Amino acid sequence: MVFEKYAHEVDSPMRLKDLGEKWIVNYINSTLKKLPETFLPIGDDAIDLACSSRLLVSVDMMVQNTDIPEGMKWRDVGYRAITSTTSDVASKGGRPLMYLTSLALPPEMETEHFKELWSGILEAVELYGGVVAGGDTNAGDQVIIDVICLAEAPKKIVSRSGASPGDVVAVTGLFGVEAAGLHALINNVKKPISCKVIEKMTRPIARVKEGRILSEYASASIDSSDGLAESLHLISEASSVGFRINNPPIDPLALEYSREVEVDLLDLVFYGGEEYELVVTIPRESWSRARVEIEEAGGRLIEIGYVIDEPGVIEVLWGSQYIRLSKRGYQHFTPIQDLR
Amino acid sequence: MVFEKYAHEVDSPMRLKDLGEKWIVNYINSTLKKLPETFLPIGDDAIDLACSSRLLVSVDMMVQNTDIPEGMKWRDVGYRAITSTTSDVASKGGRPLMYLTSLALPPEMETEHFKELWSGILEAVELYGGVVAGGDTNAGDQVIIDVICLAEAPKKIVSRSGASPGDVVAVTGLFGVEAAGLHALINNVKKPISCKVIEKMTRPIARVKEGRILSEYASASIDSSDGLAESLHLISEASSVGFRINNPPIDPLALEYSREVEVDLLDLVFYGGEEYELVVTIPRESWSRARVEIEEAGGRLIEIGYVIDEPGVIEVLWGSQYIRLSKRGYQHFTPIQDLR
Repeated sequence: MVFEKYAHEVDSPMRLKDLGEKWIVNYINSTLKKLPETFLPIGDDAIDLACSSRLLVSVDMMVQNTDIPEGMKWRDVGYRAITSTTSDVASKGGRPLMYLTSLALPPEMETEHFKELWSGILEAVELYGGVVAGGDTNAGDQVIIDVICLAEAPKKIVSRSGASPGDVVAVTGLFGVEAAGLHALINNVKKPISCKVIEKMTRPIARVKEGRILSEYASASIDSSDGLAESLHLISEASSVGFRINNPPIDPLALEYSREVEVDLLDLVFYGGEEYELVVTIPRESWSRARVEIEEAGGRLIEIGYVIDEPGVIEVLWGSQYIRLSKRGYQHFTPIQDLR
Repeated sequence: MVFEKYAHEVDSPMRLKDLGEKWIVNYINSTLKKLPETFLPIGDDAIDLACSSRLLVSVDMMVQNTDIPEGMKWRDVGYRAITSTTSDVASKGGRPLMYLTSLALPPEMETEHFKELWSGILEAVELYGGVVAGGDTNAGDQVIIDVICLAEAPKKIVSRSGASPGDVVAVTGLFGVEAAGLHALINNVKKPISCKVIEKMTRPIARVKEGRILSEYASASIDSSDGLAESLHLISEASSVGFRINNPPIDPLALEYSREVEVDLLDLVFYGGEEYELVVTIPRESWSRARVEIEEAGGRLIEIGYVIDEPGVIEVLWGSQYIRLSKRGYQHFTPIQDLR
């Protein structure tokens, strides 16, 4: 009998369907935390939250088949799900208070994978300084992670629409390595550079600290989870301006990857997505103060160009000439037909 | 060419993949509303919300394969998704302010079905008095609707844990007709009574008004979306009490259905779920005032029994004798093995 049990454990790992919803809910609930000054206990029908001023709320859903590349570790998946939603509030200067997580999980999912997923969620939440206060758990065909973040708003909230000609365009980090890592994972690229880019892509950091500081200085702000080109186009549309990018923020690892694996560097840097840097415009007179303050807080603020008075035009100095960036960020539901 | 176009339209309805994510997002955004005193425009990275006191937050995910019976109209699905989350905050006395909806939609979904789904969402949100302020849209294998509700908390928030022996147990409506409707839908029961129960089940109402009033009087409160038996068991566990139910809240239509279709009435009334009535305990001295106030507001408050000092014991007068209700609410991830 002992041997039979052993054989069973080796052959078939424990799966969520072996444990049932109650086990999952209890597992999750044992890790949940209450904010100070809340009244309702964990696991009640709703969560209460004392708030004295203004909140920021964002939600971001991660769907296994479209958003989670095969080969990504479950801990990293959980970490990214929290990071993605956090990045949205960070771009508006929010300081995360509370997260809710709505999960769909396949009954066939290995229990250890679920635990890894959850540990990644908790790791990221701790990093960003909030608590997971509740959520919902369901059975589904594939893993779905919907993360809701409630954050304390800054004194001044920066939209996408305040950019003016002459403003500096800046970003909080370099671009291209996330897309390179994704490319290496999906295409199973076996080169030394692959490990480097994959390792770097597993822990992108939502720029909460930077977003808070920039809320005092920026005229427009957005995150870059759909790619740098898309972010520039969205600010461009909302503010009716254009951009001249004379210092593209190329990550040296992305450059190395593009050379060794022969993928297009412009694609990696501008159209990759999955980055969680902030893209901001800052009036020229505030630029130095903003940069110094970000650097004093341990962050980076990189000037990449300036705002021009040509709505919709985004020019990038690439090699020795300016090229125009078209609008083609990632879209779900591939359109196959023009209906007009 | 005209005939060709016509034939195309009749043969193959427009699907989401024909239109793409931008179309869906624009369609949704054109129906979104801002709360007064918000700063960020619709479609920005996050939503801001001015709040002066305490909020209630809840989230509820609806998954097509497990939560949406085949044959249910898409408008009703949308209506129910909003109602389900609203019911959670209603049980704590919350007044809905703002909803966020995270959707996964299959690219093959017919555009008309998506529009129906969305119209049901808007119908319910209007009924409960909030706005849909934002959300997220993704492609997925099946329809997933994750609804987040932010609500204004009442002065006093009622948890599940305050029930005391002697308190009245009351509900805001009758039970069993939702389960009967679901049974009729799933089993495609073709009897006149089927239409009646299906029609009644399509528009359950979250008890927002009642919950607000009851927050002043109730010692414990919960909604009944997982079934009346489960709700009683959860209050019982949280409050360390038991219940004697001497007036089971049987809906006459459920009784009629159980007789004509030969399904167990106790199952329909206590274990069906999908109801959105509130289950509350009220100190005896406050009972009359609570009932009168609810009735003046156009609602119902039905006394079904009283709290007893026997933790975990739930007795129901059924026919001429008391029977004990076991704990077997709906669980996702059917457990197939006891691991202890």
